Amino acid sequence: MMLSPVESALAYARENAARFRAQLVELLRIPSISTLPDHAADVERAAEWLIADLRRIGMTRAEIFRADGYLPLVYAEWLGAGEGAPTVLLYCHYDVQPAEIEAGWVTDPFDPVERDGKLYARGAVDSKSHVIIQLKALEALLAAGGPPVNIKLLFEGEEESGSEHIFQFVRDNRDLLRADACVLSDGSFPDVNQPVLDYGLRGIVAMEITVTGPTRDLHSGHYGGSVHNPIQALSAMLAQMHDADGRVLVPGFYDGVRPITDEERAVMADYERWVMDEWRSFTGAPQPWGEPEYRIHERLGARPTLEFNGIYGGFSGPGVKTVLPSKATVKITCRLVPDQDPDQVVERVRDFVAQITPPTVTSTFTPGSDRASGVIFDRDTPAMRAAAEAYARGWGARPIYAREGGSIPVVEVFQKYLSESIVLMPFGYKGCGAHSANEYVILDMFHKGIDTMIYFHDVFAEAFASAT
Amino acid sequence: MMLSPVESALAYARENAARFRAQLVELLRIPSISTLPDHAADVERAAEWLIADLRRIGMTRAEIFRADGYLPLVYAEWLGAGEGAPTVLLYCHYDVQPAEIEAGWVTDPFDPVERDGKLYARGAVDSKSHVIIQLKALEALLAAGGPPVNIKLLFEGEEESGSEHIFQFVRDNRDLLRADACVLSDGSFPDVNQPVLDYGLRGIVAMEITVTGPTRDLHSGHYGGSVHNPIQALSAMLAQMHDADGRVLVPGFYDGVRPITDEERAVMADYERWVMDEWRSFTGAPQPWGEPEYRIHERLGARPTLEFNGIYGGFSGPGVKTVLPSKATVKITCRLVPDQDPDQVVERVRDFVAQITPPTVTSTFTPGSDRASGVIFDRDTPAMRAAAEAYARGWGARPIYAREGGSIPVVEVFQKYLSESIVLMPFGYKGCGAHSANEYVILDMFHKGIDTMIYFHDVFAEAFASAT
Repeated sequence: MMLSPVESALAYARENAARFRAQLVELLRIPSISTLPDHAADVERAAEWLIADLRRIGMTRAEIFRADGYLPLVYAEWLGAGEGAPTVLLYCHYDVQPAEIEAGWVTDPFDPVERDGKLYARGAVDSKSHVIIQLKALEALLAAGGPPVNIKLLFEGEEESGSEHIFQFVRDNRDLLRADACVLSDGSFPDVNQPVLDYGLRGIVAMEITVTGPTRDLHSGHYGGSVHNPIQALSAMLAQMHDADGRVLVPGFYDGVRPITDEERAVMADYERWVMDEWRSFTGAPQPWGEPEYRIHERLGARPTLEFNGIYGGFSGPGVKTVLPSKATVKITCRLVPDQDPDQVVERVRDFVAQITPPTVTSTFTPGSDRASGVIFDRDTPAMRAAAEAYARGWGARPIYAREGGSIPVVEVFQKYLSESIVLMPFGYKGCGAHSANEYVILDMFHKGIDTMIYFHDVFAEAFASAT
Repeated sequence: MMLSPVESALAYARENAARFRAQLVELLRIPSISTLPDHAADVERAAEWLIADLRRIGMTRAEIFRADGYLPLVYAEWLGAGEGAPTVLLYCHYDVQPAEIEAGWVTDPFDPVERDGKLYARGAVDSKSHVIIQLKALEALLAAGGPPVNIKLLFEGEEESGSEHIFQFVRDNRDLLRADACVLSDGSFPDVNQPVLDYGLRGIVAMEITVTGPTRDLHSGHYGGSVHNPIQALSAMLAQMHDADGRVLVPGFYDGVRPITDEERAVMADYERWVMDEWRSFTGAPQPWGEPEYRIHERLGARPTLEFNGIYGGFSGPGVKTVLPSKATVKITCRLVPDQDPDQVVERVRDFVAQITPPTVTSTFTPGSDRASGVIFDRDTPAMRAAAEAYARGWGARPIYAREGGSIPVVEVFQKYLSESIVLMPFGYKGCGAHSANEYVILDMFHKGIDTMIYFHDVFAEAFASAT
């Protein structure tokens, strides 16, 4: 019996499953920690490892892009499907968070250990399994005669340290990178058996407010009662920023917020159960909180926030110090949704802070430089439909649709310069401990991920052809 | 012409002025920093220096009291005035704050330098000049035949590090220390030509509140909008603790507060000008703040406060961290006035915190162990009248009366176990930079201080005799 190219690729993936796992272990052994300068050589080593494998599997171009201060950005392509076929840009990151054994690791974070179908290592789920899934799906398709789509591939090495350079790189290399769909592969399902397709991300802006009362720290006995304490003034200001239900009271903050449609509510309804289960098990908070007219997953994915990330002022050591401090500072980030304008949100908060600063203190407002808008992707593109179908075939379950509360700033430049069509394809599970001790990947999910990506390229080629 | 004993003592002080200054310099050279364990031997050395001088000038008993973990407590007495004469207990401290040259010292803090009538050194005003003033006034009186009062003298070596042991020492040695008046010599005038007699001190209690939202730090993208942020909850709680004018809103907080009498208002009226001048030059705050129905010096000396000494929670490093923190903490001290009950104030704040903690977070309340009541001294005691007269003679200006906003916890045990009659006799000036870089003592004030103490002992003996 003659196998189709997809069947052939799936068979190849099954035959080579042990080697694929061994290669994942190899990559996990390299401590490519991008946040620690001491590990720059390891990040380099991981990039070289990827280049070697990309060349071996038959990518026609594989090179490292560098510039001053860059950690290596791995680019590869295979354009053998021809001009009539669509082009897919695949994005993953191969750098990892730090991992100190003292943080509670049961085994060495860079000496992967398999137990009960799980592989434990730093980067196992975030995001080296995603990198290897993409690589090995391509290897299988190339071994079966080549994928029916052209492939461009971008593996970033500084995602965990702030993605400082990829924005400029994408702008400068838009012709090289342009595609018919961008697949960003990272992230997690709410349940091992329940794939999820995120069709939105929140944006983000950051700012800092410092309130100054006296110009120096004062003795609370000698001056207390006659000087407005900046902690007190700041607390009173912060207390005016939300109502008791969590609505943001900054005038104009909600300008442009796109309402959740009834259709979205119906599409996302399935997600609430998963979100609530996870909320309860993970947060440990006494009870949910926030805008009562929205479900929890709507609050997380479709509503903007004004969050206090940190506060400090005066004495924080053990014991007592009778100081009336000079300053108090709060750090704020706002998560944004379409169609809020990040610059305008910053200005609205700045104006409100100026307005509510009492005359007995002064305040300074420092906006952060990084700004990302919230985004929503069309759920009815060929790539999105192909992703849903690929999960259905590779996982045996149709994905649910959700809007993600986090931000992936790079999505905005991909969408602007490379392709309107964005798909986020996660293959992790929320319980896998990304950024925590004893991070793991579930090996069954790893193999299903490879199958799903093999299906994706095939289904997308068909969907794209019939749509054009 | 036959000199009276006082005239004779004053003459002795003038003749020995240069040596008295030299001895002050000697004591200032010893870095008796009680807060740094490395300097324990220096504190010891300063105590031995004092003992030697006390013996030399003719005190009949001079010894160091020690117990486990004590820094040396210097006790001396001269009871030659006899049973009919009153006994004065003199208290000073000879330990000092740390002084790092990097903090802005123009010269070595432990190598005293004289410039323009000022002697610069750590401890110059706080409080070694006070120690030497007391010592040299006694020396002059002893040289002139002996003071007309019995003298007990207590020099503490751990005032700057929290006075941990003196409370128990006073309780255990009440018979040894009992006196007809206690003179605590430390502190500052609002102006070099304007002596001040503080007739009240505020008390103090400390506490800490921690608000916990989620049981771990959360990703502000993944959870923001669904979890009550503890910084937000704490800010809202703190904002409920004062009204816009600074009145404390904790129910029952003002229970027992003794109203300021019209007579006090008249007595203290002179002080407002000095306080406001200093307030403006020192605090740098945009404008005064606090209960509008009270003058600034009344807010400082006669009204209780609830002050936020420090706040912290979440991320305080440079840049941005998108964390929804688990906890936020505030450190609070309340300054108390008569007749608030410190224990009751703590309970009232505890109850209020429990009442205003929203159900979406939890709060813990940790009271501090050190508690001191506010105190007011009778202005019409023989000792207080003698102090006023001594300043008038020694300084050429009658003192103004004020209530001090700070706390001297040891006063409470002195008053309870040793004598109801307490007098605070400062000889410093507020601008002398106690606890700051380039601390100094004004040498003219140092010599006037010695004269004033010579007068004090003489006038007090008379005032006591005529009162009994």
